[in-house]
Amino acid sequence: MRSRRKSGTSASRRRSAVKTKRRPGKTARNGQPSDAILVDLKHRLSEIYDLNAAGSVLSWDEATYMPVGGAAARGRQSALLGRLAHERFVDPALGKHIDYLEARAGELAAADASLIRVLRRDYEKAIKVPAEYVARASAHGSASYNAWIRARPENDFAGMIPFLEKTLDLSREYASFFAPYAHIADPMIDDADEGMTTATTQRLFAELRRELLPLVRAICDQQPPDDAFMRASFDEAEQLAFSLSVATQMGYDVARGRLDKTHHPFCTKFAAGDVRITTRVRRDDIGDALFSTVHEAGHAMYEQGVSASFEGTPLGAGVSAGVHESQSRLWENVVARSRPFWEHYYPALQKTFAGPLGSVPLDSFYRAINKVTRSLIRTDADEVTYNLHIMLRFDLELKLLEGRLRIKDLPDAWHAGMLADVGVAPSDDRDGCLQDVHWYSGRIGGAFQSYAIGNILSAQFFAAATGPHPNIGSEMASGRFDTLRGWLTENVYRYGRTLPPDEIVARATGTTLTTAPYLAYLRRKYGELYRLSQ
Amino acid sequence: MRSRRKSGTSASRRRSAVKTKRRPGKTARNGQPSDAILVDLKHRLSEIYDLNAAGSVLSWDEATYMPVGGAAARGRQSALLGRLAHERFVDPALGKHIDYLEARAGELAAADASLIRVLRRDYEKAIKVPAEYVARASAHGSASYNAWIRARPENDFAGMIPFLEKTLDLSREYASFFAPYAHIADPMIDDADEGMTTATTQRLFAELRRELLPLVRAICDQQPPDDAFMRASFDEAEQLAFSLSVATQMGYDVARGRLDKTHHPFCTKFAAGDVRITTRVRRDDIGDALFSTVHEAGHAMYEQGVSASFEGTPLGAGVSAGVHESQSRLWENVVARSRPFWEHYYPALQKTFAGPLGSVPLDSFYRAINKVTRSLIRTDADEVTYNLHIMLRFDLELKLLEGRLRIKDLPDAWHAGMLADVGVAPSDDRDGCLQDVHWYSGRIGGAFQSYAIGNILSAQFFAAATGPHPNIGSEMASGRFDTLRGWLTENVYRYGRTLPPDEIVARATGTTLTTAPYLAYLRRKYGELYRLSQ
Repeated sequence: MRSRRKSGTSASRRRSAVKTKRRPGKTARNGQPSDAILVDLKHRLSEIYDLNAAGSVLSWDEATYMPVGGAAARGRQSALLGRLAHERFVDPALGKHIDYLEARAGELAAADASLIRVLRRDYEKAIKVPAEYVARASAHGSASYNAWIRARPENDFAGMIPFLEKTLDLSREYASFFAPYAHIADPMIDDADEGMTTATTQRLFAELRRELLPLVRAICDQQPPDDAFMRASFDEAEQLAFSLSVATQMGYDVARGRLDKTHHPFCTKFAAGDVRITTRVRRDDIGDALFSTVHEAGHAMYEQGVSASFEGTPLGAGVSAGVHESQSRLWENVVARSRPFWEHYYPALQKTFAGPLGSVPLDSFYRAINKVTRSLIRTDADEVTYNLHIMLRFDLELKLLEGRLRIKDLPDAWHAGMLADVGVAPSDDRDGCLQDVHWYSGRIGGAFQSYAIGNILSAQFFAAATGPHPNIGSEMASGRFDTLRGWLTENVYRYGRTLPPDEIVARATGTTLTTAPYLAYLRRKYGELYRLSQ
Repeated sequence: MRSRRKSGTSASRRRSAVKTKRRPGKTARNGQPSDAILVDLKHRLSEIYDLNAAGSVLSWDEATYMPVGGAAARGRQSALLGRLAHERFVDPALGKHIDYLEARAGELAAADASLIRVLRRDYEKAIKVPAEYVARASAHGSASYNAWIRARPENDFAGMIPFLEKTLDLSREYASFFAPYAHIADPMIDDADEGMTTATTQRLFAELRRELLPLVRAICDQQPPDDAFMRASFDEAEQLAFSLSVATQMGYDVARGRLDKTHHPFCTKFAAGDVRITTRVRRDDIGDALFSTVHEAGHAMYEQGVSASFEGTPLGAGVSAGVHESQSRLWENVVARSRPFWEHYYPALQKTFAGPLGSVPLDSFYRAINKVTRSLIRTDADEVTYNLHIMLRFDLELKLLEGRLRIKDLPDAWHAGMLADVGVAPSDDRDGCLQDVHWYSGRIGGAFQSYAIGNILSAQFFAAATGPHPNIGSEMASGRFDTLRGWLTENVYRYGRTLPPDEIVARATGTTLTTAPYLAYLRRKYGELYRLSQ
């Protein structure tokens, strides 16, 4: 423990030169200048940020390297840090600081005004939820998750019914803290994707469904490409090294991050200078580690690109779940499943895995990594069918929240929905409504829409970048990504949360969230791949 | 964040059945029963324990996997957790709990009475040191350490003089908080090794020196064994695998721990179920990873052997720095540098490293790993000369603290001391008084004696174990350590801090700390190795 926190004395004098003592609003409660309020606010936020970051280190360790014996104490340690951060955040003194500075927002620097706007949003969300509910929901989420870990391999949906029923009650109760609302799912959707509602999401999804269903049908009328070579044997260490090498060439900075193996891939941030990713790796699947790594690197490049000046405040993070997912999907799909990308990387991949890939032509590889198929598991789904999986879940959770579907009828509804939209249905719940962790972690509602929003935005951002920079494609074909990453950093990443998501989208792309570029991208790419008549 | 801290309601009723309401002392301040005070105390201690454990996870990560970019935020995060733990520990409410329970110690269960005794000691030490001093000393320690990181490779002792002078002032100031004392180093020695003083340490060291100097001389008159084969090329992954395999066969439980690589080896504990070790590994040195791993595994087995019932309180840890070091040295030297040990393991080592070791006989290997040599670097020193390095440092720091030696004269004093005792002297300060981190971390005094105490106790414990269990040697010769580890667990490990170090030593060995077994061990082992006349 060599270094100690410095107090903010120099920062407290930062803006005083441009102020006079007489101007109204310059003297705060207890005679403190308003700058002192801002400094105290930022000091509090920095401690909260650091407590949460320390908690994230503990979670990362739990997922990567912790021995089994450490689990019990780790749960206790993580809960303590979470509680200390939460207590500090809902402190009424913090609320008073927000009130005070909000009333003087016009006098604040732009970033500070953004900070107050974002804080108001987060603070209101936090204080509306009673501590007693948080404890109750957290305990239930933990119990439900542990039950699901056992129930899924045993295909035991019946055993999960009581948990899900309580989860549904808790989710409805959560929404009630934010009443009135137009739809009961709205508060949860807004948590993840500020500005989105059930109604806007439904409109987007209707547009997608109208186009995707015939597209999937047209594709699946064709002969599917051969992808058996993707499931040969690939050395795991070589897979990891190749994947990380691609991610770093894309711009993921390993001086401020690292790659480790976990059961489920994720990205986590401890500081602007420490944004880590993890991946899964399977010996018999060349795609898994590679695309998981690039996906997480997309999230990580976003976080690494947020202006470091926001470190220690709520501004220093990606703006919404949907915009975050747009970056993981942009790099994973729009870039790393494109033909120009593999024109550059395929020779290196073939050299690394000469046995299984040496005699496979680029075109066959490109077709294999973009194979569209009616399949059961969301996380393994291709770009075209993926959103159908999302929409099924979104529709079902709306029905559950609205009281139009009972938990016990979920398997049947899942089966019917899969058949109708994806065209296949699972023979058991393991590959059906037991497959995703989300509902089993203690919340029904508000999570799945972000994945589809991410897909939509990935193409919208990419189109906006390539418009003024048509060289992005040829750069990709020579393993360079500077123009693309530069555009994303300039137009999306650096802002952090200073602008709301819809404003970031509008400024970057000239329009609101729209499905047109995404659908055009899918039609063009898969029209070519499957030689469809346009 | 799936699990949340459970409140201690069931524990609070644990002992109530054996109590009556009328007995005096059963009703505490504010009408609380004294059990409630104990429960509240343990709740506070558990939070402090968890905050410190979380800080240790952060430190472990910093040393193992953290990218360079994470350093600044990590310093801030660690300092915050340290401060929160310290604030909770020096809380006057905790002091009142100790007062209250101390007055009723006779009514407490034995472990709770021990807890109060240990807490009193720790609490008094903590509150006697002003927070202002802690901040000042910590900031200086950090600055000094960072300066030393640069200065050592540049051999720049002059640049370190101002830092060391301030460190000496701060160390003297630290001691002043515990005045009166017989010697200014006593408070710092007592911090690390409860019950030891400058006077007792000096007596021990005089005994050691009297025997060691002629022993070293006699050995160094002989032809040194050849150990060039130890510096061939050894695959690093194989070294790590072999080292960990040895450690686990000794009894280090990797379900409750793990081994990673770091610049400096260490052992760290996050919980009874998570005690990790690290090692260094050098391709051109077969001994480094192996003996470092076993050394740290000795520390770790001690911590893993502490009764899990003490988890979350100050009782749940090794009792002193000296007793801790006795376990690392016992496993590293008395066991893993013994002939019986290698009778079992050498064939496996030869098989793993057939190139460099295939034609080296066991006896040559055994002589090489116990080669005694007049050398400059403490951490590379053999068993026989090691204590001479320690005594030099101890003598010099006493002189510094007493004001009989000036910082600027340290290099000359080091040179003279090395020549007199070890028989060689460094040509520069890099391999002289700049070599150890201790003085450069912000404290002069109280650290080095523990290493020698550990050496002494390693043989004292081993002799006490083999007395009633003469089969320990033959077990070692067949790669089994159950009897030895069982004896150590029963007589040392399980107690944690419930008994003071001198009582643990006395109960386990039947006598107080004594150099006789250690000197007998060295004379016997090195007498044989170097064919000395006894």
